[in-house]
Amino acid sequence: MKINNAERDAVYKTIFARRDVRGQFTEKNIEEDVLRRILTAAHHAPSVGFMQPWDFIVVQQQQTKALIKEGFDAAHQRSAEMFDKQQSSQYQQFKLEGIMEAPIGICITCDRSRNGPVVIGRTINSQMDLYSSVCAVQNLWLAARAENLGVGWVSIIEDAVLRSALAIPENIDIIAYLCIGHVSHFKDKPELESAGWLARRDINNVIHFDSWSAQSNNK
Amino acid sequence: MKINNAERDAVYKTIFARRDVRGQFTEKNIEEDVLRRILTAAHHAPSVGFMQPWDFIVVQQQQTKALIKEGFDAAHQRSAEMFDKQQSSQYQQFKLEGIMEAPIGICITCDRSRNGPVVIGRTINSQMDLYSSVCAVQNLWLAARAENLGVGWVSIIEDAVLRSALAIPENIDIIAYLCIGHVSHFKDKPELESAGWLARRDINNVIHFDSWSAQSNNK
Repeated sequence: MKINNAERDAVYKTIFARRDVRGQFTEKNIEEDVLRRILTAAHHAPSVGFMQPWDFIVVQQQQTKALIKEGFDAAHQRSAEMFDKQQSSQYQQFKLEGIMEAPIGICITCDRSRNGPVVIGRTINSQMDLYSSVCAVQNLWLAARAENLGVGWVSIIEDAVLRSALAIPENIDIIAYLCIGHVSHFKDKPELESAGWLARRDINNVIHFDSWSAQSNNK
Repeated sequence: MKINNAERDAVYKTIFARRDVRGQFTEKNIEEDVLRRILTAAHHAPSVGFMQPWDFIVVQQQQTKALIKEGFDAAHQRSAEMFDKQQSSQYQQFKLEGIMEAPIGICITCDRSRNGPVVIGRTINSQMDLYSSVCAVQNLWLAARAENLGVGWVSIIEDAVLRSALAIPENIDIIAYLCIGHVSHFKDKPELESAGWLARRDINNVIHFDSWSAQSNNK
């Protein structure tokens, strides 16, 4: 199947316009068919040995979100203490989640024992199943952006909190908790870039040819 | 920035038409500007704390590819012995890489020490930087598909082989080795699905609402 130039450009537009959204969620609900399309896109991610190790837990209840928000708050407080004094002060000013504001959350997991112990492509690199679930996250994120929905990945939270709040069995790995919803607007740039926390790296410094050091300043 | 319906549909088309390509690479070279666009898309993946931990090593030399192919062959042979007899026989019939045929390879890495030891969003989940590099893989994969290029992820290879062939420093983690090139055609379905190795899971079995077991047959 051929992708034409207009379609190609739409993919790039979506990739470059994607943001990690924390503060711009609106109350508007996500339509059921839109949610279904986004999850279908995630389900069509590449997976090692076609094992499709993911599950998607859609979180809609306010009481469940409140448990997750509580877990974030505790982890966030402990995280602030890990930075040096000046960084910690700036860190605490960033809004890093939209758990209560976003109409839904989606937890993406990885069932490492799915389809038996020996998986094509995981025989040497045992991380491959986890990486497959991350590819599902990124498919979901881009599909959501294509639907003009914002997504924010909440990583400052203990697995134990999500496991308890969502009744996730012990043998299932937790990959991501995403907030998702309509937004007032998308920012032009990543917030940490605009805030001067870190700059976008020059792409020439991350591309190498044939060996690590050749034609790169990235030493 | 608003994505319109035609653009949204182009994103879905690309997601559903993406394949893990092993056997359909042609000799045609990848144009420099196309390669640049694909790598730029990868560089615009989400990253934890905006750390952009990835590097991209573009492999063009046949002698480098030959070293990598040798590493694959050894790992593939060892992998075949991990399956039971019947599975092993089918396993050995699958073509699982296009290392020599694809005009280029791209190794994606993760520099876990980039921008210092404390990273926003990695304070609780230490895997987040690895996952950022995987998001870059998936951006690259979709961008390549939008350019009508095939990509295949070669995971049956020891890190040590890639590290030696590409002079990757010990402190840099290896995430993926991708083969990339023009293709004769894209298959309609994943090869392991067509071969009857595994079926596509019913999406209703991977979606849950508010807790693991609710509204799901996936127990």
